[in-house]
Amino acid sequence: MSGEVLGSMFNQNNYSTARMRAVWTDENRLKTVCQVETAVAYAMAKNGKIPLSAYEEIKAKVVPENYDLTQLRLAAARAGHFLAGFVSESQSLFDDGAGQFLHYGAASEDVEDTCYVLQLKQADRIIMDYLVKFGDVLYHLADGYKKTPSVAIAHRTYAAPSTLGFKLAVQLNELDYLMRRLDALSSFTFAGSLTGVEGLSNMIGDHYDQVETDFCDYLGLQVPEMYWHTQRERFTEYCHVLTMIAQMLGKLGRNLLTMSQTQVGEFQEDYAPGRQGSTVIPTVREPYMCEAIVNLATVIRDEMPLMYDTMQVSGEKDTAVWRDIYVVLPEITMYLSGQLNFATTVLKEGRFNVNRMAENFLLDDGTMYSGALMMALAKSMGRQDAHGLLVDLRVQADDRQQSLRDCFYQDQTIAKYLSHDDLNRIMSPEAGVPHAVEKTDKILKLYRKRHPLKTRSDS
Amino acid sequence: MSGEVLGSMFNQNNYSTARMRAVWTDENRLKTVCQVETAVAYAMAKNGKIPLSAYEEIKAKVVPENYDLTQLRLAAARAGHFLAGFVSESQSLFDDGAGQFLHYGAASEDVEDTCYVLQLKQADRIIMDYLVKFGDVLYHLADGYKKTPSVAIAHRTYAAPSTLGFKLAVQLNELDYLMRRLDALSSFTFAGSLTGVEGLSNMIGDHYDQVETDFCDYLGLQVPEMYWHTQRERFTEYCHVLTMIAQMLGKLGRNLLTMSQTQVGEFQEDYAPGRQGSTVIPTVREPYMCEAIVNLATVIRDEMPLMYDTMQVSGEKDTAVWRDIYVVLPEITMYLSGQLNFATTVLKEGRFNVNRMAENFLLDDGTMYSGALMMALAKSMGRQDAHGLLVDLRVQADDRQQSLRDCFYQDQTIAKYLSHDDLNRIMSPEAGVPHAVEKTDKILKLYRKRHPLKTRSDS
Amino acid sequence: MSGEVLGSMFNQNNYSTARMRAVWTDENRLKTVCQVETAVAYAMAKNGKIPLSAYEEIKAKVVPENYDLTQLRLAAARAGHFLAGFVSESQSLFDDGAGQFLHYGAASEDVEDTCYVLQLKQADRIIMDYLVKFGDVLYHLADGYKKTPSVAIAHRTYAAPSTLGFKLAVQLNELDYLMRRLDALSSFTFAGSLTGVEGLSNMIGDHYDQVETDFCDYLGLQVPEMYWHTQRERFTEYCHVLTMIAQMLGKLGRNLLTMSQTQVGEFQEDYAPGRQGSTVIPTVREPYMCEAIVNLATVIRDEMPLMYDTMQVSGEKDTAVWRDIYVVLPEITMYLSGQLNFATTVLKEGRFNVNRMAENFLLDDGTMYSGALMMALAKSMGRQDAHGLLVDLRVQADDRQQSLRDCFYQDQTIAKYLSHDDLNRIMSPEAGVPHAVEKTDKILKLYRKRHPLKTRSDS
Amino acid sequence: MSGEVLGSMFNQNNYSTARMRAVWTDENRLKTVCQVETAVAYAMAKNGKIPLSAYEEIKAKVVPENYDLTQLRLAAARAGHFLAGFVSESQSLFDDGAGQFLHYGAASEDVEDTCYVLQLKQADRIIMDYLVKFGDVLYHLADGYKKTPSVAIAHRTYAAPSTLGFKLAVQLNELDYLMRRLDALSSFTFAGSLTGVEGLSNMIGDHYDQVETDFCDYLGLQVPEMYWHTQRERFTEYCHVLTMIAQMLGKLGRNLLTMSQTQVGEFQEDYAPGRQGSTVIPTVREPYMCEAIVNLATVIRDEMPLMYDTMQVSGEKDTAVWRDIYVVLPEITMYLSGQLNFATTVLKEGRFNVNRMAENFLLDDGTMYSGALMMALAKSMGRQDAHGLLVDLRVQADDRQQSLRDCFYQDQTIAKYLSHDDLNRIMSPEAGVPHAVEKTDKILKLYRKRHPLKTRSDS
Repeated sequence: MSGEVLGSMFNQNNYSTARMRAVWTDENRLKTVCQVETAVAYAMAKNGKIPLSAYEEIKAKVVPENYDLTQLRLAAARAGHFLAGFVSESQSLFDDGAGQFLHYGAASEDVEDTCYVLQLKQADRIIMDYLVKFGDVLYHLADGYKKTPSVAIAHRTYAAPSTLGFKLAVQLNELDYLMRRLDALSSFTFAGSLTGVEGLSNMIGDHYDQVETDFCDYLGLQVPEMYWHTQRERFTEYCHVLTMIAQMLGKLGRNLLTMSQTQVGEFQEDYAPGRQGSTVIPTVREPYMCEAIVNLATVIRDEMPLMYDTMQVSGEKDTAVWRDIYVVLPEITMYLSGQLNFATTVLKEGRFNVNRMAENFLLDDGTMYSGALMMALAKSMGRQDAHGLLVDLRVQADDRQQSLRDCFYQDQTIAKYLSHDDLNRIMSPEAGVPHAVEKTDKILKLYRKRHPLKTRSDS
Repeated sequence: MSGEVLGSMFNQNNYSTARMRAVWTDENRLKTVCQVETAVAYAMAKNGKIPLSAYEEIKAKVVPENYDLTQLRLAAARAGHFLAGFVSESQSLFDDGAGQFLHYGAASEDVEDTCYVLQLKQADRIIMDYLVKFGDVLYHLADGYKKTPSVAIAHRTYAAPSTLGFKLAVQLNELDYLMRRLDALSSFTFAGSLTGVEGLSNMIGDHYDQVETDFCDYLGLQVPEMYWHTQRERFTEYCHVLTMIAQMLGKLGRNLLTMSQTQVGEFQEDYAPGRQGSTVIPTVREPYMCEAIVNLATVIRDEMPLMYDTMQVSGEKDTAVWRDIYVVLPEITMYLSGQLNFATTVLKEGRFNVNRMAENFLLDDGTMYSGALMMALAKSMGRQDAHGLLVDLRVQADDRQQSLRDCFYQDQTIAKYLSHDDLNRIMSPEAGVPHAVEKTDKILKLYRKRHPLKTRSDS
Repeated sequence: MSGEVLGSMFNQNNYSTARMRAVWTDENRLKTVCQVETAVAYAMAKNGKIPLSAYEEIKAKVVPENYDLTQLRLAAARAGHFLAGFVSESQSLFDDGAGQFLHYGAASEDVEDTCYVLQLKQADRIIMDYLVKFGDVLYHLADGYKKTPSVAIAHRTYAAPSTLGFKLAVQLNELDYLMRRLDALSSFTFAGSLTGVEGLSNMIGDHYDQVETDFCDYLGLQVPEMYWHTQRERFTEYCHVLTMIAQMLGKLGRNLLTMSQTQVGEFQEDYAPGRQGSTVIPTVREPYMCEAIVNLATVIRDEMPLMYDTMQVSGEKDTAVWRDIYVVLPEITMYLSGQLNFATTVLKEGRFNVNRMAENFLLDDGTMYSGALMMALAKSMGRQDAHGLLVDLRVQADDRQQSLRDCFYQDQTIAKYLSHDDLNRIMSPEAGVPHAVEKTDKILKLYRKRHPLKTRSDS
Repeated sequence: MSGEVLGSMFNQNNYSTARMRAVWTDENRLKTVCQVETAVAYAMAKNGKIPLSAYEEIKAKVVPENYDLTQLRLAAARAGHFLAGFVSESQSLFDDGAGQFLHYGAASEDVEDTCYVLQLKQADRIIMDYLVKFGDVLYHLADGYKKTPSVAIAHRTYAAPSTLGFKLAVQLNELDYLMRRLDALSSFTFAGSLTGVEGLSNMIGDHYDQVETDFCDYLGLQVPEMYWHTQRERFTEYCHVLTMIAQMLGKLGRNLLTMSQTQVGEFQEDYAPGRQGSTVIPTVREPYMCEAIVNLATVIRDEMPLMYDTMQVSGEKDTAVWRDIYVVLPEITMYLSGQLNFATTVLKEGRFNVNRMAENFLLDDGTMYSGALMMALAKSMGRQDAHGLLVDLRVQADDRQQSLRDCFYQDQTIAKYLSHDDLNRIMSPEAGVPHAVEKTDKILKLYRKRHPLKTRSDS
């Protein structure tokens, strides 16, 4: 174990999930390299570039079980280059010349990039799975709380009545967009590469397009339109969408943190028996997971500059920027796995305190209804004059240390246009419910249409 | 004038174009605010929320000519809020009550966000126009130089023969992708917003969807699926694509800088009469514009963290992150305008030195052909053994201080499989031409199909 | 006016102060260039490199009044280089040959870098002045509120009693450190440069060190140890300290935002008559300035990557990274001026609501005192056992829906060791006051010793 | 093993050194936690807060050998908090009540922060050691090559003659500054912390300052002036200096890459027998290590935004930003270890090609001497007129396709003032040597004075 957070036994589960870490282990990397080198041999043999028997022998022998990781590491260190070490280390597996056909016609970056694509595709499956689960939780909460009044907050202060379900639904609608974006990228990002260092397929020779097509088909990858070692959009775009997902989750985390404040008390992370909030405040239950969600949003955000840098390839190959994806791809997917895990857990196991939400409406002195009041008055006295009137009442309330709400009820101008009952109706936590329900239902319907529930046989 | 680079008379043209700067002036902002407030009145009137005459009066009076910028600035400063100042300042234009219907049913963020969308859409037109022009220049260069041998470079060292045209074509193919991405964003990004601070359209009341649709139609904007004040993907996605464009250009700039080195001499920026490279090296002609292209790629890259931060809205409105778009949208489009201007000029007016390109092939000692040589030998002696043979020849050449190329010609094992003519053919700068032409033609065809030349009547 | 936030009449005061903007105008840049070119002539004349009369004529004629900004802009555009344009434009001022001695022996980067240093030094004076004023406000608040109980918050939840004054004092102590850091940088950052493009002073010839010393002395700048065009620490270090100051302010802003939440109500930004919080919520008073403080912290943070990039100079001069300082230096100092202005105003004019602070203690159910309670019990029953007991009481309180505080008072084990009075004392908002006062006084004393109040004659 | 680059057996040596990785292992973390908890007990016992015997038993039992990492991990996972798990897991080591005194009076962040400080201090020793070694190599190269002519490059084009040694010396002078900066931070950064969650030392009680002093003394750490859990400059400042070191190295790497280009050929990384440049270009020797140096500069740069974010602590404790240091501290020091290792190896084992350097002077057509020529002419004909003359000759040379150098020798105006010998002297690669030697010697002397060679007994 190394000691950075993802490599520390004490820390890694606070930043990632074991399932995602498994994608990026040396063991899985080796397995992927074996697959890709086998695919090279397959495509070459299919197009008559190497003997079919050579492909078959490579397929049989170039498998993870035939390699010793430590020896491979040493070979790579000696060669100064992982694939160079791998290819030479592999020779001992063959005694009849088939080893000569290993890595035949391929450049290192063909193999390395295709491996990263394959591993990223595995990561993508996990992320999509996590997103679906997160979406399900969010969907049910949005639906369940769509009529539960909750204050809309502008600039940290009360703005207007809304509902908890609608707020969660807007988040769901954002998730909906991001899931579709990620999905749409699959056909672009998950492409193979077999065109040589300069992209001219000269080491392959004739029928080079067919060779690359067979290579990609074998691996279940898209066939790219053109040589892309120097076009890094495939990786940059993908990481960008992950980063947006992370910010969307970060926003959720921030809002849950606000709801978790002692002074607000509208949300409480789950504390399983034995879980402890603090060594020094024995009875506290702190929103650690919400904080982790927020933290991971920024940690992931700071991966992106490298993904833009990685696009600035000097010449046809440039490790000074190519190395950026070695750093970012494992980290960003692992961090996101941790963040999604926390977000789903927090929403699923945490508890919204609906009573407190209702009580918190009472902290408002009338301010949050002044928009609706202005519009109600506008019909009779004009919007601008209504605005002016309410501003004056604010000053008056402050000067007289009076409740603004009382001023509304007592004001004679208001009384001219609005009855006591009108005021009650306008200044009600329930005022936002009807539209909130309509809009939430629209979002839920769109979400379910685009992301239908999987039946048992699908999974 | 303020003094940051975009606001300095001495500097702004080194970072932007006048055409793009015009989009973001206070004058154009005011014009856009007037349009949007008029659209609000239109949609309200059309749906019977305000009198039709009020809309007509607003349309006639809420026009830039009726405002004094300095007075508006003061009103905004007093109110602490631009729109608040604007609305109150506007009242004096009306003497019959129609002012009451200004900003009716709209929240500040509806107007502000819609204005940013409208200005960004204007910026988008300019960027697309610039991209088309840049693409045309690149297209013709790629076509014209597709048979011109040029060394492919890996890790700053010679890797294999390619052609200048193919290299430029790969860049064109990248541009092709990015232009399609930008185009595809239009229907998502350029949407209006009229849903109120909490997104429930409560200040609008019934038929709120129709009101928002009419509002958007009036402005030529998309109707959004849902309230998006707290979903900032519209802006983040757009800036991300601009940032990728900037990196693509940055890559071009970096490669042109390498070609501009005195030791390489394959490219020379244009020096119009009177242009001076240096105050102290009177005769030098330095690639300032290429440097500017590279610089702007990083300047633009560093705008993106704010665009990710801006997604983390606290509650329903949060100026702590909303202000990020005020900073980024004008800057990123202006910087990109400058970068595109330099990139197009440099390519169009600069000079590729084809003679020098040919001479530079001679700096290679045979190394760059060793891949092709290995593959040629592989057919007879196996890839791995050929690899080993060439590695040995490298060591031998170094030990004996001999030319590697000579070693290839003199080696008896090589001679067994390859004739002198074979070697001449393999070790030729022209070796990359055939595939380069095929691949370049494929790229050009795809590009032209997707981005057809505008006939005169289109423009 | 251009339209980025610093260049927009509508926006610039929300991001900067007029006083700082004045440092970076084209007018002041021209003035600085004139000064530096005069200093070059002075140093050359003093060391016999040019005639004394030439220096005198340059001093008299190379003054801002003799230049037309628009013409200068055109000359610079023609030359493709500001200084080249300036030097040639200046020739018309001389009719007797003294113009030949302008810019004599200097490289463009000597002049440009020295100008940036001089302008940055002007900016530094303003920042130090702002910091002193901010420090004074903070000092008085820390002192005034040092006995005012306020809850310490860990992970957004109540942790222990503290005082408002102590919290502000810790911020003051941080400011204290940062002011000393900024101060210490003066002798490093504010150095001139006169060594030529390659740093060998070959264009100056003998006595080159004396020439540079005279040049720096004339301008009131430090003499650098060595040629530093390729060593950019002077600028990077300075911007780093500004960025830390911005984060320190950002932290203050974040905490004030929390205190400004409707549910917390412990702080209220000042609303002068006429200031408006919202166009749609007429009576609201939102903490816009606190949000701006937080926003500017991130805007400034995102300047730093360019300042690290700018250190990676290729060869002896490299505009691809040199341009970074043209972008950053004006922006970072202007943004910080705006942030400091808001921070000082908010603290000075805003209102802490001490009553609400006291009431908010009551929202705690006993949790925040459990640390102190554990330590009090630890003396008798051991820390770990006390911890376990309190954890059990937490579970019991939750199960029985009882107040935790009541559980503490009723628990028989606790009662064995602590009397009712003990518990009252331990569980008191005042419990933090004595140490808070001691520590606050220590901080105040250190601050005042290091940053003594200026007497009238100093200023 | 996890799979991010630092945790991958295949990759970690390309990004770090084993020596630095050892600092951050879970094993060393555990050891550090044991030390710090022992120091807490020591300070408490010394001041009569806990029995001396408890400290002695803690000292004896709270040692890494007594813990099982896997069990500890599980305990931490259960508690949701490493220290909570550690403290409860430790209880089984004691059977007589001394366990009650473990972690007595300390808050988690006291222990965690102090542990990070201790580990960072260990990392600091390694970095300083690496820097000294790197400095030694640089020193000897600068000294050895101080008279070796090498072209100074501005904007990628030839600017003036310099020497290789001087260029390396300027880098050494930059290193000199950065080493002193790092050194100066020790007394600030490496401080302990024992003040409780709210910073008031209430859990310690009387003599709290003495307790903290004893605690720090025991650990060999500085005593901080004040509670600093919410003042994160200690970590941010340190990482900033590391980041500047990384950029300084990145600059070196960039310049070595330029020298390694096939077209330049002035530098060659060492290739030990068996090391391979490429799987497909068998004979190539690519500057991989130089690319790694450049790459790590950007990887490290992108750690800094988190270090600025970490300063914005909400309230008294905020894991949303505290977690940033868990991510950054191990990564940044590990990455820097790898970068320093590569930089030292590259310089020590690589080969500067002095012959090629001399030949490359010949690629210049006279341009690089035009500054010196202008100054030589300036004495007779005036600087500005000389400038104009040379600009005209440039145009003439281009028009006539003549060598600029020849134009200089043939021009009659030049001939009036300068003899053929004068021109030879001015236009000589050696022209920069005298000043280069003087300046290099000055740098070497300063460096050695500030960083004296360790005698054997020191080390």
